[in-house]
Amino acid sequence: MALWKSIGNGTLEGVSRVADLDASKLTITLSESLKPIPPHETLLFGKTMSDHMLVAEFDPEIGWSAPRIVPHGPLSIDPASSCIQYGNTVFEGMKAYIGSDGEPRLFRPDMNMARLARSAERMALPPFNTDQVLALIRQLITIDRRWIPLFTGYSLYVRPTIMGTRMGLAVAPSDHATLCIMLSPVGPYFRSGVKPISALAVSETVRAWPGGTGGHKVALNYSPGFLPLRVAQKQGYEQILWLLGDDLKVTEAGAMNVFVAVKREDGDIDLLTPPLDGTILPGVTRDSVLALGKAHTAGETTLPDIPASLRLHVQERIITIPDLQQWHAGGKLLEAFGAGTAVVIASIGKIGFKGEDIVFAEHEGGLGPIAKAFRTRILDIQEGREVWKNWSVPVAEL
Amino acid sequence: MALWKSIGNGTLEGVSRVADLDASKLTITLSESLKPIPPHETLLFGKTMSDHMLVAEFDPEIGWSAPRIVPHGPLSIDPASSCIQYGNTVFEGMKAYIGSDGEPRLFRPDMNMARLARSAERMALPPFNTDQVLALIRQLITIDRRWIPLFTGYSLYVRPTIMGTRMGLAVAPSDHATLCIMLSPVGPYFRSGVKPISALAVSETVRAWPGGTGGHKVALNYSPGFLPLRVAQKQGYEQILWLLGDDLKVTEAGAMNVFVAVKREDGDIDLLTPPLDGTILPGVTRDSVLALGKAHTAGETTLPDIPASLRLHVQERIITIPDLQQWHAGGKLLEAFGAGTAVVIASIGKIGFKGEDIVFAEHEGGLGPIAKAFRTRILDIQEGREVWKNWSVPVAEL
Repeated sequence: MALWKSIGNGTLEGVSRVADLDASKLTITLSESLKPIPPHETLLFGKTMSDHMLVAEFDPEIGWSAPRIVPHGPLSIDPASSCIQYGNTVFEGMKAYIGSDGEPRLFRPDMNMARLARSAERMALPPFNTDQVLALIRQLITIDRRWIPLFTGYSLYVRPTIMGTRMGLAVAPSDHATLCIMLSPVGPYFRSGVKPISALAVSETVRAWPGGTGGHKVALNYSPGFLPLRVAQKQGYEQILWLLGDDLKVTEAGAMNVFVAVKREDGDIDLLTPPLDGTILPGVTRDSVLALGKAHTAGETTLPDIPASLRLHVQERIITIPDLQQWHAGGKLLEAFGAGTAVVIASIGKIGFKGEDIVFAEHEGGLGPIAKAFRTRILDIQEGREVWKNWSVPVAEL
Repeated sequence: MALWKSIGNGTLEGVSRVADLDASKLTITLSESLKPIPPHETLLFGKTMSDHMLVAEFDPEIGWSAPRIVPHGPLSIDPASSCIQYGNTVFEGMKAYIGSDGEPRLFRPDMNMARLARSAERMALPPFNTDQVLALIRQLITIDRRWIPLFTGYSLYVRPTIMGTRMGLAVAPSDHATLCIMLSPVGPYFRSGVKPISALAVSETVRAWPGGTGGHKVALNYSPGFLPLRVAQKQGYEQILWLLGDDLKVTEAGAMNVFVAVKREDGDIDLLTPPLDGTILPGVTRDSVLALGKAHTAGETTLPDIPASLRLHVQERIITIPDLQQWHAGGKLLEAFGAGTAVVIASIGKIGFKGEDIVFAEHEGGLGPIAKAFRTRILDIQEGREVWKNWSVPVAEL
């Protein structure tokens, strides 16, 4: 459905010749007073912003403006802009870590960039050269490098956002946009740290549906969950497990992809996650769990504290609440966990549905052995202690 | 699911005692240079803003701030705000007209206010006293009264917007918000004026879903339609007729409710619109068409140029594409039209589906007799030429 396409030579196909995003045109205005960095243990997810942010604007007559690094602060936005009036925003979430070599790294940034481009296209926002976005992220992280926490499980969260800024109330695509990249030092996503989370399975409210936008990282997927989340929290659950359809298909938990580990008759383990049918976000951590699980079973690697002989049968397949109930009743439901950039991997300790809870076995350290194996390995790769394919990319090489 | 409730005495139930919205605290800062009003025939929908806007902020410790009327202009919004990051905005659309008595009027503003409150609750935004919002609209319209066009079919569009302004990237409800009311002089919604619109029926992309937010006036319902609209327009259609489900249920057209008029065996007419099942916006114009249609058939009024003896059997029922095709093939499908605040009533001249068009009979003036009857009567009421119940409310009485 693409009507605009960045063809990488400073022009956008399908638009009159206008400027593509160009990191070489970057201007930098440093903050006159740098902020004190809060003690890492006080950080709440996404609450503290670093000193600087990156901004560039798209105008249909001109194309992308020269990008600017400026002190982080409010933008001047007309309240009649499409990002306010019609929820016309897309974003990404990435994390920068300091590797063992002292260099900042990003985890599989190419996947985030490909998804950002797809999200922008879905929201009819203008196209851009994703390599230039990465080059700009490199510059921004380099300038705010002191904000990358050095503690394991901590990182500098990178939030590229593209918002439609057409001024006008007609329900129509935005021909103006603003790219804004923010940085925020973060620790464990949940205040409770690495503890199993409790999730309330909800079917009356639906996160995403076939033909909707659940498979894209768009702003509007999230706020419909705010009220149900508040209701769930009043009932004592921390997150929502979103269901879909009369067969009560499991889709996502909060803002995470979901995995379950089920014991098989042959002693192996089925590691299951819902398929990418358009209602599920194609998560980078999700993809990494799938790839590492397959690599373990293929003998290409051995996941931490998982016997090499224990095979994980990785499958993208429909999982329903009755499936979970049946596996649980049969003593086969070993673990459930969420996977996402913000949380990395978090065990699910309890799933509530219509007044009954599926309670999972407790484990020391708050993680079941499968969840722990993936979390440990992914953090090892992200933080540069372990090399796996080209997943951990030094920021200097972007 | 309400967790906060405005109890009208300056406190909000469920929140520590904080200030409710209070129009008596209004401060007014007039623009130093008033803008020239463009010739009415040049107005594009929602593109020109009046001189002033109203702003008030909610802080969880303080409650609603004293509202301010200030010159229309950009707001200072942190890019990490929930309205940007997570599509956390609700809005309303109303129109002010100058009545035959020279007084500005609004059309059924109580319905808009009730819907705004429901939308805000659905988006977990703070509550507010809707009477105070109306009192503020009165003040704003009074100040910018010169912006109300005096031509029939023209009006001053009123756009109350409430946006979540919590600064932070956690996926959680916003405990800060901004109310912003804007005014925009508007003419016919479509550039073509009163001409039948063509609509492409789309089922691959789905506007709303059971358990979703389609029954609320929330920002995020609209931008998923931008790309499909662009694609439809490339195919020569002006709007999209949104379908739902394998049975191809008709839901809405663009941002309008849909009606069809079907000839019955007994010579009467069935006037049909989809039921409010949570996927359909409960439109004020929709409700007005239903009420006027019933009143005509009950003999309480006679719609313009419709014989009093012609009964309109008004029904909220499921309508599918196969229904339309069958009625069309049988020569029974008289008219289809959209109803909404922006468009009032617009005939649909053509519905495309999978390469085939249902083409409706052409009528002089671009409106079928049923659509024209409702459009004429509703405009007569809105513009104060006709009194019907308490639908047209002088702004001075708000």
